[in-house]
Amino acid sequence: MVDGASFERAAVIGIGLIGGSFALAGREAGVLREVVGVARSERTLRDAIRVGAAHRTTTDPLEAVRGADLVYIATPVIASARIIEQIAPALEDGCTVTDAGSTKREIMAAAEALPDSVGFVGGHPMAGSEQAGVGAAQADLFHGSSYLLTPMPGADEALARMRAVVRAIGARPVVVSAEVHDSLVARTSHLPHLLAAALCGALGDACEEREFIGSGLRDTTRIAAGPVDVWREILMTNADEVLRALDGFLDEVGSYRQALAEGDGDALTQLLEDARRSREGMGDP
Amino acid sequence: MVDGASFERAAVIGIGLIGGSFALAGREAGVLREVVGVARSERTLRDAIRVGAAHRTTTDPLEAVRGADLVYIATPVIASARIIEQIAPALEDGCTVTDAGSTKREIMAAAEALPDSVGFVGGHPMAGSEQAGVGAAQADLFHGSSYLLTPMPGADEALARMRAVVRAIGARPVVVSAEVHDSLVARTSHLPHLLAAALCGALGDACEEREFIGSGLRDTTRIAAGPVDVWREILMTNADEVLRALDGFLDEVGSYRQALAEGDGDALTQLLEDARRSREGMGDP
Repeated sequence: MVDGASFERAAVIGIGLIGGSFALAGREAGVLREVVGVARSERTLRDAIRVGAAHRTTTDPLEAVRGADLVYIATPVIASARIIEQIAPALEDGCTVTDAGSTKREIMAAAEALPDSVGFVGGHPMAGSEQAGVGAAQADLFHGSSYLLTPMPGADEALARMRAVVRAIGARPVVVSAEVHDSLVARTSHLPHLLAAALCGALGDACEEREFIGSGLRDTTRIAAGPVDVWREILMTNADEVLRALDGFLDEVGSYRQALAEGDGDALTQLLEDARRSREGMGDP
Repeated sequence: MVDGASFERAAVIGIGLIGGSFALAGREAGVLREVVGVARSERTLRDAIRVGAAHRTTTDPLEAVRGADLVYIATPVIASARIIEQIAPALEDGCTVTDAGSTKREIMAAAEALPDSVGFVGGHPMAGSEQAGVGAAQADLFHGSSYLLTPMPGADEALARMRAVVRAIGARPVVVSAEVHDSLVARTSHLPHLLAAALCGALGDACEEREFIGSGLRDTTRIAAGPVDVWREILMTNADEVLRALDGFLDEVGSYRQALAEGDGDALTQLLEDARRSREGMGDP
C-alpha cells in the first residue's frame, strides 16, 4: 500500500475496460479496499463481479456513491458530465471525484457544479486496448503509461491522493491544465483517430482487397476500429482544437500535394526526412 | 523443390532486406541453386555472404547477370529502371527477369527495352519490415503474404516460373495489370504512407511530448519511419494515382470537418460507423 493512496470504498461508474482495469489494479495494489461497480447492463455487472473488479454492483449511481470516498467515472465524456450533475447531491464530504475521459475542458466545466466539500481531479489514463468491456480489464493495463491529471483549483488534497493512487497502479502522474491537455491530445490522439477513420471511409471497398493490403495500412488504421460512441464524444467535446490541428495537417498535406503535382523530388525528400525525424522523437516504433 | 520453380543461378541486384530475404527463402526452399549478390557497398556484400543470402558477390550488375537464369532486381524503383537498361545486353537467352518495386507502370515501361529472348514479370511482395538491410533478411519474410505479379505480354513461361517460385517461398502469387496494381496500392499503401508522414510533419515537436502519446499515434505513424529514398521514388513514380487517392481522402476529411464545425453528432456517428465497417473489411486488427 502506498501512503495516503488508500480509499475505503470506491464507486466505479461505468465499469468497462478502463474502470474495470482501474478497479483490478487498485485492489491488487491494496489501495482500494471495497469497489462498488456501476453499469446500465446487468450482464456487465455480473462480468465485473466474475473478473474480480467489483465487490458489489448496482445500476444506480446515487446508491453507489453513498459512503464512497472515491468516485471514478469511466463513461464516455458527455455521459460523465451528466453523471457528475446527477451524483452531486449524494456525494460524501471529503470525497475525491475523478473521471477517465479523453477530453478535459467539458468535464472540468461540469465539475464546477460540485459542492466545495468534494475534490475533483480530471483524469486521462494514456492506456487502452482495442478490446472493450470489463471482460478485457487487466490489472496491469496502466503499467508504464502516463496518467494525465487536471485538478480543479483548490483540490490539493484530492490531487495528492490521485497522484499516489496513479503511482500505486504503476502509472506516471502528469499534472496539466485542461486547456493544454485538450490542445495537445487534439494533435497526438484525436487528429490521428480522425485521419485513420477518414482513410478507412475513403478506401471503402478497397479495404476488402486484402491481397493489396500490407501491415502498413493495418497499423495506420487500427484505431479506426475503436468504439464509435466514445470517439464521437471525444471529437465533439474537443471540436475546436481538433479543427485547429486538422488545419495544420492539411497545410502539411498541401506541401506533399504540391511536390507530387510538380514532380519536385527534392521537396518530397525534404518533407519525408522531416517526417522521419519527427517520428523518431516518439522513441520506440 | 517445387516443379518448374528451380533456377540454376540467380543474380539478386540490390541485396538488402527484400532481395536478401528472397535469396534466403529461395535457397531454403531449394529453388535457387546459386545466388550472386549485387550491391554498391562492400559492407552489404560481406553481410550478404555472412547471413547466407549469397554464395558470391560483385558490385557489377553486368558481371552478375552473366550465366544467370533469374535476375531479381530489388533496388528503389527508378534505380531498377536504370539497371534494366544497363543489363539488357548481357542477359542470357531464356532468362527470367523480375523486380520487387512498389510501383509497376514505370518498371513495365522500362522492361519494354529488354530483348524478346528474356521474360519480364514485375513483382511486388506485400511484405516488409521497419528494419532495413540484408542483416535483417529473413527466410520467412514472405510467408503467408500475397506477392503481386505483373507479367509482360507474352512472358508466359517466365510467369509460370515466377508463380512457382513465389509459392515455394510461402507466398500467394496474385497476377494483376500494372495499371490496376498502381491504382490500388496508391490507395492501400502509398496514400497511407503519405498521410502518416504528413501527420508526423504537422505534429513536429509535439512528437516529443511522450506523456501525451499513446499506442494509437505510434501505430498510425509507424510507417513514416520507413526509408526516405525508397518512398520518394514510390510516390514520384505513382504521383498521378496518389494524387487521385489523396483527393478522395480530402473529400472524406471535408465531411468530418463539416460535422465537427457544425456540431453535427449524428453525421459524425455515421462517418465513424462507416469507417469502422470499412476497417472490419480488412480482417485481422
